[in-house]
Amino acid sequence: MTRERSLIKQIRHSAAWSRNRAVIQGIGDDCAILRLKPGFELLVTTDLCLEDVHFRRAWHPAAAVGHRCLTRGLSDIAAMGGEPLACFLSLGLPEDLPQSWINGFQRGLLALAERFTVQLAGGDISSARQITADIVVAGQVPTGKAVLRSGARPGDGIYVTGSLGGSASTLRQLFAGKKLKPGKSNPHFYPTPRLEVGKWLRKHRLATAMLDISDGLSVDLAHICGESGVAAIVSSNKIPIGKSAGLELALHGGEDYELLFTSRKQARVPARIGGIQITEIGEIRNPTDYSSAIQIMGDNGKVRRLPQRGWEHFARQR
Amino acid sequence: MTRERSLIKQIRHSAAWSRNRAVIQGIGDDCAILRLKPGFELLVTTDLCLEDVHFRRAWHPAAAVGHRCLTRGLSDIAAMGGEPLACFLSLGLPEDLPQSWINGFQRGLLALAERFTVQLAGGDISSARQITADIVVAGQVPTGKAVLRSGARPGDGIYVTGSLGGSASTLRQLFAGKKLKPGKSNPHFYPTPRLEVGKWLRKHRLATAMLDISDGLSVDLAHICGESGVAAIVSSNKIPIGKSAGLELALHGGEDYELLFTSRKQARVPARIGGIQITEIGEIRNPTDYSSAIQIMGDNGKVRRLPQRGWEHFARQR
Repeated sequence: MTRERSLIKQIRHSAAWSRNRAVIQGIGDDCAILRLKPGFELLVTTDLCLEDVHFRRAWHPAAAVGHRCLTRGLSDIAAMGGEPLACFLSLGLPEDLPQSWINGFQRGLLALAERFTVQLAGGDISSARQITADIVVAGQVPTGKAVLRSGARPGDGIYVTGSLGGSASTLRQLFAGKKLKPGKSNPHFYPTPRLEVGKWLRKHRLATAMLDISDGLSVDLAHICGESGVAAIVSSNKIPIGKSAGLELALHGGEDYELLFTSRKQARVPARIGGIQITEIGEIRNPTDYSSAIQIMGDNGKVRRLPQRGWEHFARQR
Repeated sequence: MTRERSLIKQIRHSAAWSRNRAVIQGIGDDCAILRLKPGFELLVTTDLCLEDVHFRRAWHPAAAVGHRCLTRGLSDIAAMGGEPLACFLSLGLPEDLPQSWINGFQRGLLALAERFTVQLAGGDISSARQITADIVVAGQVPTGKAVLRSGARPGDGIYVTGSLGGSASTLRQLFAGKKLKPGKSNPHFYPTPRLEVGKWLRKHRLATAMLDISDGLSVDLAHICGESGVAAIVSSNKIPIGKSAGLELALHGGEDYELLFTSRKQARVPARIGGIQITEIGEIRNPTDYSSAIQIMGDNGKVRRLPQRGWEHFARQR
């Protein structure tokens, strides 16, 4: 227990430099206490990150693992149009894990937390057989204004932020044994949660449905179609393809953490929001008119069914 | 992923029978949405439960593991005087774990959730090397009324609910190789979070400081003393000792999930609250008057230092 206790002390100390006014009581009591603004609702999301499932120690520097871990939670808050307030971290650590790894992980996570004024307000620590990090993010959104997956209607345009497949392309290179420098600008190692875009879209009532692309475009678009009870068609030549990715990875590669949203036909969606490129890639259709939920129109104008071949955790790909 | 997806479907389905009105959006979107009552603050607590650290498959039935897991979170809400609303479960599952184990775990967890009207509102699932369950509980408490660890003052009486050491006594028997029937009334297998008592104490403004005894009385009383900046003395002959436990386990055994609280000298604390026995075991002292923070008066009237020998996760006791 000595190690856990001293770690909790260390984390409590470092968490002090990422403060959020909503946090009334942070680490140090049975529960954290948060005060939402009047007229706001609470958002909660949890994401589990496991060694050799979501990352590999040999490929991912500890700081990138911490960054990616928090990004997953922040990206879910972005996808509701919300504002993050606090995060909670449960850590399972192998006995022989070097302290330097823990320090790096914490540094990567807290740097991102500070950037978006998210306070590390609690958590738990235990020994474990593999590195285990469960991240919980709490946020707020004006009452009744959260953007759900279920609001898409036939005729709505389908949009994405940024470009797709870049993260999967890096992962493919890692699998091929390529040595990569895990630079801060590489979206696989240091993805950016699209919090400003999500909030802007919600404020301007432009998004009818929204989620973040974590599993891959084909799977995540199916989530919107499933929850909204609609079908969709996308055009292959409109998909914004990430650096060295290609269409297949842009359609099926995961972990880009870009936003996928729909907007009414007559809505004016800007080409850029907060410096981030916005691309219309297709249209929501009436489900009864089509034999399959999601179709793709190729460069030759031919329409085919888009299979849902999303992101499988890479432990399974070996 | 097929197994994870079908599990999420199954859990989403079963979660439907533990509803809480505060949950506006449960499982099925990027975040859960909760609406607190006006004039209330949010409470959040997270607890990590790992196979061979917090439980053993050979000793603990799956339903008891699920029950214990949620109890840890609910007990933290009780210790603030709060009311639980929703829980979030992140599960790491070994590939060869039988479906029957998962069903049992879920049944144990959801039965307790239903009893206290706590909705399972989200979570995550992944494969893992050992069974991993991270439970998050969200609750509410009237603004500014949460009972913290830091409110104890010299002269306050020290109280505990129920009896202590019962859980550790069962654990000791398990270590000794004894075959035990994991009955519903055994507080080791099916501990009861003291939610009614915690809420009653907060409503009647009787508790100046409070926490739940998860590590053991000696360690948890030190937490109150540390956060409140006070010292304490307890009387060995006043400690309510659990079934077949003895004083040592009552002082240092963990996982009883009873409440430990302090109350002003002149306060009238009932002998029972909601049917649960309340026992005064000692007094908060001025820290400058004593060489060590916590002392114990023996049956012979002699006072000695009470060492903090709390609950070490049993993986370390082998």
